[in-house]
Amino acid sequence: MQYIRYRSGSKAVWGRCAGDEIVELAAPPWTEQAQELRRFASTSDLPILPPCEPTKILCVGKNYSAHVKELHPDEDLPKEPLLFMKPTSALLPPNGTILMPPQSERVDYEGELAVVIGKELSWASEVEAQAGIFGYTLANDVTARDLQSKDGQWTRGKGFDTFCPVGPNLVTEIAEDAVIVTRVNGEERQRASLTQMIFSVIDVICYITKCMTLYPGDIILTGTPEGVGPLQAGDTVEVAMAGIGILRNHVALREV
Amino acid sequence: MQYIRYRSGSKAVWGRCAGDEIVELAAPPWTEQAQELRRFASTSDLPILPPCEPTKILCVGKNYSAHVKELHPDEDLPKEPLLFMKPTSALLPPNGTILMPPQSERVDYEGELAVVIGKELSWASEVEAQAGIFGYTLANDVTARDLQSKDGQWTRGKGFDTFCPVGPNLVTEIAEDAVIVTRVNGEERQRASLTQMIFSVIDVICYITKCMTLYPGDIILTGTPEGVGPLQAGDTVEVAMAGIGILRNHVALREV
Repeated sequence: MQYIRYRSGSKAVWGRCAGDEIVELAAPPWTEQAQELRRFASTSDLPILPPCEPTKILCVGKNYSAHVKELHPDEDLPKEPLLFMKPTSALLPPNGTILMPPQSERVDYEGELAVVIGKELSWASEVEAQAGIFGYTLANDVTARDLQSKDGQWTRGKGFDTFCPVGPNLVTEIAEDAVIVTRVNGEERQRASLTQMIFSVIDVICYITKCMTLYPGDIILTGTPEGVGPLQAGDTVEVAMAGIGILRNHVALREV
Repeated sequence: MQYIRYRSGSKAVWGRCAGDEIVELAAPPWTEQAQELRRFASTSDLPILPPCEPTKILCVGKNYSAHVKELHPDEDLPKEPLLFMKPTSALLPPNGTILMPPQSERVDYEGELAVVIGKELSWASEVEAQAGIFGYTLANDVTARDLQSKDGQWTRGKGFDTFCPVGPNLVTEIAEDAVIVTRVNGEERQRASLTQMIFSVIDVICYITKCMTLYPGDIILTGTPEGVGPLQAGDTVEVAMAGIGILRNHVALREV
């Protein structure tokens, strides 16, 4: 199944994708209230929103070994997932503009698989973690690399408004060996199979929920593969995966 | 003015404190919809909730010089606020029980002044920051000190469920030289004047909003003074300030 979330007047609405049509839902698709309301023809200019309603955005650092080596050549691979958070104020829809803040001289893309949670999870077993996944989408863990290093804590460097593009589609199944690709102005910069993750999605969910309860609509960014690099004003950055589609965003300087 | 938030049936409700009475409000007190609904006598067993409705919890590290020296004796004082976040899933009401997770061998209290935001703020000037403060309450930035050090990123060590007690009252004014005190089992462990903060509340809000938009109901934990130390199962920990009252919590081992 494939879902989208979009703006309809002043409201955010969920829809199920059915061929060339969208079936509007009465509530988020992971809830019992998600009755089908009406069908309409899908158009390319539907104002798409991030397909999640997170109370928090959890992220995993250093989850692809080649990426660990490119940023930290002397470091051992992590023995546990490294957790950090992005604020929900950083969410950006597909086609939205990533704003490069004046405080930073280097803003990087990081294409990632994102997992949307469908059930409340605390101290989840592997079976519960699997059942608690509602679906998968894409994210760009945009990072002010200079501020990330300077601060030590990653909250500011990864937390600017517009630094968390998510979308476009939410799909309930993906291939275990699906390939994630990041392109800048059409040129490929990152390419990896999900099989290259150090900690699987299930490992990550079990680990997180031994610390904090996950709620329906929460999302987890599962780490970026090698090939991260800087963005410039005027760029178009795309994160793509078969089945989910293309998360495309533009880049501009933030005017203050 | 002094406000509380409490559970009434299955709902969270806001009230204004008026002597020995509570005046129930129709909406959060920072909104235009906060009409007064009914009055009733205040009782000591009202099920108090954290007086905030955050989309995010921002925190400042190293904001009292004596605390910087006790944890990092060789470090210079910070030139900018150090930001980190706690997840909203960590919120705990007054009188709630802080659960020490089995992963940690050292869980510390950190008594702090918390600021509740009343207006949407982005790139706030000092005047806008001041106008955007709705009020003040207390928080305990509970920290698994061993995991904070081990991970490097503070998200896990500070993010466990129950690690963010907040309350009891929300007051719209405090003295500039108000004194914050933390006690464990009645014994004083932390005592500082707000004048000892390295970065003022206004400095912190201006700094945060140059990165991320703050929304009404969001809270900022403004840093802890010196005197942090470990908690044990069975302890009672209190953070107190004249006008706001006493944020009292109990401590127990988390059973898995």
